[in-house]
Amino acid sequence: MPATHRGVTLVRRIVTLLTDFGTSDGYVGQMKGAILQRSGDCQLVDITHEIPPQNVGLAARALGSSWKHFPVGTVHLAVVDPGVGTDRDILAATVAGHFFVAPNNGLLSAIIEARPADEADRRIISVDVDRFFDSPTSNTFHGRDIMGPVAGMLAAGVPIAQLGEPFTGQLIELPSLVVGVDAEGVRTEVAAIDHFGNCSLATTFEFESWFATKRRVRAQLPSSTESVYLEVCRTYGQQPAGANVLLTGSQGEIEIAVVNGNAAEKFQLSVGDSVTLA
Amino acid sequence: MPATHRGVTLVRRIVTLLTDFGTSDGYVGQMKGAILQRSGDCQLVDITHEIPPQNVGLAARALGSSWKHFPVGTVHLAVVDPGVGTDRDILAATVAGHFFVAPNNGLLSAIIEARPADEADRRIISVDVDRFFDSPTSNTFHGRDIMGPVAGMLAAGVPIAQLGEPFTGQLIELPSLVVGVDAEGVRTEVAAIDHFGNCSLATTFEFESWFATKRRVRAQLPSSTESVYLEVCRTYGQQPAGANVLLTGSQGEIEIAVVNGNAAEKFQLSVGDSVTLA
Amino acid sequence: MPATHRGVTLVRRIVTLLTDFGTSDGYVGQMKGAILQRSGDCQLVDITHEIPPQNVGLAARALGSSWKHFPVGTVHLAVVDPGVGTDRDILAATVAGHFFVAPNNGLLSAIIEARPADEADRRIISVDVDRFFDSPTSNTFHGRDIMGPVAGMLAAGVPIAQLGEPFTGQLIELPSLVVGVDAEGVRTEVAAIDHFGNCSLATTFEFESWFATKRRVRAQLPSSTESVYLEVCRTYGQQPAGANVLLTGSQGEIEIAVVNGNAAEKFQLSVGDSVTLA
Repeated sequence: MPATHRGVTLVRRIVTLLTDFGTSDGYVGQMKGAILQRSGDCQLVDITHEIPPQNVGLAARALGSSWKHFPVGTVHLAVVDPGVGTDRDILAATVAGHFFVAPNNGLLSAIIEARPADEADRRIISVDVDRFFDSPTSNTFHGRDIMGPVAGMLAAGVPIAQLGEPFTGQLIELPSLVVGVDAEGVRTEVAAIDHFGNCSLATTFEFESWFATKRRVRAQLPSSTESVYLEVCRTYGQQPAGANVLLTGSQGEIEIAVVNGNAAEKFQLSVGDSVTLA
Repeated sequence: MPATHRGVTLVRRIVTLLTDFGTSDGYVGQMKGAILQRSGDCQLVDITHEIPPQNVGLAARALGSSWKHFPVGTVHLAVVDPGVGTDRDILAATVAGHFFVAPNNGLLSAIIEARPADEADRRIISVDVDRFFDSPTSNTFHGRDIMGPVAGMLAAGVPIAQLGEPFTGQLIELPSLVVGVDAEGVRTEVAAIDHFGNCSLATTFEFESWFATKRRVRAQLPSSTESVYLEVCRTYGQQPAGANVLLTGSQGEIEIAVVNGNAAEKFQLSVGDSVTLA
Repeated sequence: MPATHRGVTLVRRIVTLLTDFGTSDGYVGQMKGAILQRSGDCQLVDITHEIPPQNVGLAARALGSSWKHFPVGTVHLAVVDPGVGTDRDILAATVAGHFFVAPNNGLLSAIIEARPADEADRRIISVDVDRFFDSPTSNTFHGRDIMGPVAGMLAAGVPIAQLGEPFTGQLIELPSLVVGVDAEGVRTEVAAIDHFGNCSLATTFEFESWFATKRRVRAQLPSSTESVYLEVCRTYGQQPAGANVLLTGSQGEIEIAVVNGNAAEKFQLSVGDSVTLA
């Protein structure tokens, strides 16, 4: 619950939003209105609304790297929901003092499973949609009509256990990206490409250990039969503009970048492309 | 007025923003600064800033489907204003407990006229620009220099009647879209296309009644001489990925969609295109 | 400091954000989370996140025309930071009652130097990164890991003098745009192009004086060997749709526009293009 002073709420709950809605329609605004109907005052923060339509994998990745930068008590609402209107569960969960609301389609599984130490404290609730939403809801926009209001209730301090029954079903998981490390090098793939064209690679502990020993890496990329040499560095400014580099990016993954340039364009890389490093 | 507790405001007024400004310049931020100069604290919520430049019709549609999802007392600021700097009136209105600020160019007419039951409670004020804005204002950005501050005053609790004289002029109306329903079928048009490529059709009660009896519809679209068959369904997930469907969308209109796909791209549809259904 | 009533904060500090991060990744959201970790409650306002990557000049221009529209006490956080992870200073400054946080790369120099009358009140601090950020920070995202938290501390009321030592280094300046005015006319350049395609020209007092005497101007643009005639006007609505006009825009600069159209597209203009007016 927020701190209070003589009955006055001093700190507003934060609600973050992550969707594939884009920002050209009124959809995000309508969902925020629905949150505010239930939350009273709160702090709304957009993570992004530009997840490619229906791409649950990239949404899970963006949520997974963002939620922990917010204060404990934050409510994270994630709506990439190709199964809207079908019988997929809507989950409300608490992990490590944060709250999450999302459909059961893989968006939350990595967050929940990455924190076994929190198991005693965490709860996963299957939202009892019929109890809270007996009035007609749309069949195609549960972000506005169900999940937004649920996030609003959590922001208002409604205990999560009151939102439904403990979830006893199967938590949908996303296929994990494959990274192979052996004597010849690393076989990985482009996990995401950011606004700057930096290409995050699927990264494991073994890949990081391999990377830690390198100063220069030879990369085989799908767009060319010739190899590309990447300078290993700590930050972009260590190399001149236009240099091809390999470094640990801000999301904790090893990434291919071009200093003051766009690696995805230069090397014609797309999400899912195979990358071999030696 | 917001609730208070021992003189402390507990709930901040909400101000929504809808413009054609885009988000690449500082325009939206400057308008928010101007609101905050007058409002003190408030909750700012973007509806969208990606209305196509000067497209009052699409702006009115986005506002019309969004405002009612916010709590009573919300101030809705809508600035798509090709007549900036001319003698068009600037309106402040209250309808159904919500507040609206916009130029008199069609943005508000549908909202005001759709609520005849509220007539006793509603007010439309022609903002007395000279009284509140005697310092030099720009000639090209009244969103920042006039309408934003007016919205800020409403958010601060200034009674709407103090903003000017009752509006006695002609409320500008937008041309309404034509929908024909007869024994042969429905002739309608694409009213809007959303981020997912779903194509909302101009929808009337007669069209809805016709639609309610169908399971499968044959559509004639401008991009092809051949008909397309659309499966009538309740939600996207009822049909397989790639299926062509016709359903009631979240904005209350009948829409052409492709499950997990982009109907506008697949069928090369644009806003205003004629669609014949049988 | 915010006003208080019986120990309760009544007005939240405003923090504006200006970056080249785009909005498709979680970067802006993560930076907001980092601000909120330190600020407690505050009002977050996006100026824009669509500065072209690494373009410090356009960022400085957008910040310079936006900050003064916010209330005194606002914290302005600007992160376009190609030198991230190198030894460039991170500055916290106060000018005219506003606060600024940015790398020392030209983003703030125009704001600081344009206010000589404020010299007694203004302070520029080199943020003591090691004192506040002894835990490992990323090498590539100081917006989230250093500058966001610094802005959050200012929003929480931490006195700016506590953030580090007075800055005694060299304030990096940006090259200024050249405008020539003589008997034959004006030689200037396109300083910025906005969402509507309006082309702001580099503007000086001499150019404004010249402009004030004109009713119609002949422009020589790089895209054509033929001249274009521009009607001088006060606002767009004074000329018919499609007219080529020259007027003082909302950012205080003289701009080339097409009424209800897109001048940049029509005349194929880009930032930096030479423009000769007679």
